[in-house]
Amino acid sequence: MTGQPQLIALDWGTSSLRAFLMGADGAVLDTRAAPMGIMQVPAGGFPTVFADIAGAWLRDAPGLPAVACGMVGSAQGWQMAAYCQAPTGLAGLATSMLAVTTGSGPDLRIIPGISLDMDGTQPEVMRGEETQVFGALSLHPALWESARLVMPGTHCKWVSVQQGGIAGFQTFMTGELFAALQGHTILGRPARDAGQPATEGEAAFSRGIEAARGSLGGIAPLLFSARTLVLSGQLQAADSLNYLSGLLIGDELRCALPDAPGRLALIGDPALCDRYLRALALFGVTDAITITGATEAGLWQIACQAGLVGPQKDVA
Amino acid sequence: MTGQPQLIALDWGTSSLRAFLMGADGAVLDTRAAPMGIMQVPAGGFPTVFADIAGAWLRDAPGLPAVACGMVGSAQGWQMAAYCQAPTGLAGLATSMLAVTTGSGPDLRIIPGISLDMDGTQPEVMRGEETQVFGALSLHPALWESARLVMPGTHCKWVSVQQGGIAGFQTFMTGELFAALQGHTILGRPARDAGQPATEGEAAFSRGIEAARGSLGGIAPLLFSARTLVLSGQLQAADSLNYLSGLLIGDELRCALPDAPGRLALIGDPALCDRYLRALALFGVTDAITITGATEAGLWQIACQAGLVGPQKDVA
Repeated sequence: MTGQPQLIALDWGTSSLRAFLMGADGAVLDTRAAPMGIMQVPAGGFPTVFADIAGAWLRDAPGLPAVACGMVGSAQGWQMAAYCQAPTGLAGLATSMLAVTTGSGPDLRIIPGISLDMDGTQPEVMRGEETQVFGALSLHPALWESARLVMPGTHCKWVSVQQGGIAGFQTFMTGELFAALQGHTILGRPARDAGQPATEGEAAFSRGIEAARGSLGGIAPLLFSARTLVLSGQLQAADSLNYLSGLLIGDELRCALPDAPGRLALIGDPALCDRYLRALALFGVTDAITITGATEAGLWQIACQAGLVGPQKDVA
Repeated sequence: MTGQPQLIALDWGTSSLRAFLMGADGAVLDTRAAPMGIMQVPAGGFPTVFADIAGAWLRDAPGLPAVACGMVGSAQGWQMAAYCQAPTGLAGLATSMLAVTTGSGPDLRIIPGISLDMDGTQPEVMRGEETQVFGALSLHPALWESARLVMPGTHCKWVSVQQGGIAGFQTFMTGELFAALQGHTILGRPARDAGQPATEGEAAFSRGIEAARGSLGGIAPLLFSARTLVLSGQLQAADSLNYLSGLLIGDELRCALPDAPGRLALIGDPALCDRYLRALALFGVTDAITITGATEAGLWQIACQAGLVGPQKDVA
């Protein structure tokens, strides 16, 4: 039955939409993608976008269940799926999905995000990463008991896993901070003006990591050095953004690592994960692993937990 | 002789140009301003801009000496005036001025900036603030022995004064960081969308200060709270930028204050200095003073020290 479609699974984020047609055991039978993140969908346009990306699959296999994760469940998405509160596990998510009418086949079930400490001084939220977490745990069962999963990107999440559930998490805006500093402050200008690629980017990145690692005060007193090291001739202009990237990632690790018990695993863009691996090595962490395919695996796991797919479906 | 012009003094920065006609004892006899910061001056255009702003004064009093401070002495300015190295005092600056030919009257003498630790891991530079420092010391002699002068703005400088000289300094990019986060990240969106003025801005600002004051990790783990406190209903969208401003200024104080011996004095935009005063009070510092007119006073002091003006000129 491996080739038989069982599930349509969507990773529907802010800027892009990916769709998976899945067979038994979550095998990916077909994939589609569209630049139709929720910010690109016009008001009332979600059913149409869904039909565009999943319609052909539904024509071949009417009645296929469908699940989605990501910002599609935010207030700016299709419909708001209320957050589950952490700590929570797979069962909590699976029983809290929001069903929306698509107009093409069965309802789409939207996986809620997770919130933490919403009455506290530092509330936290995530949407989409929770699905990656449970996918990662299914792919790497050794992480189940205790692990820290790190998802680098615009808003990097550090998720603490205990006994197969999400115990807590913390957000670092490292990617968005870097983009804002690069594009809209004096720190980006030397590299823009240099007009040539970085020649010692690796060394500059490490230098930024080391500077952040040794700083007690955090990033604020260090940022200006991304300019003055160029002025003093110690850093090539073209390499200055690598130094800045090292400062920001190094500062994130300085803050987050001491609170990170358990095995460390990275999930995300391979090139970015590689930067984090190099940064972690400079902090003495050399046993971190990287995980791919976590989103697809998580969508399948949650659909299984909700009884939408699974062994019993094969029998039927 | 009070009404007799003795000096033309220019504060020539990145985005604006201010000019002062000064009489005996640095009394300001006339003022002019133009939106002709160095970024607005076309290539080779500095003599023309100088003639436009100072020409009428020079026609009435040919041969008046002229001094300038600020980014006009940078590589992007009229001509590069090499930095003086800190520690340095008034005499060091006065003997290091760079004379440029203006085509209208005597040479313009450009006050050099100051650099610190250019071979080290965190080099520092300033241009213009050094003039404010020596102006502040002339206006408030009690600061001469030991003080910390703080100049809030795009790049906030913390200058350590010992025995009338600049012993060291540190730069925090607080103003530019706030502008980049406000304009180009998700943190600025709630306030933009709110479309109404802050109603509890003061309380939100204090809340940001307190959050930063209590953080051991610096700003990185706190930034996202400027969004999640709005999501959790604890902070009005319109107030969120006040909270963010409090976070950044609070983080700056957390880093800089422990290293700040001596009386603390603020120099800069009055509204911004007032924000810093309120932040300082939350850190328990209630005796900080604010200083106005520091740039004009500093230009006069340095011209005196260089022998361009002063009592002997009155006699002659």
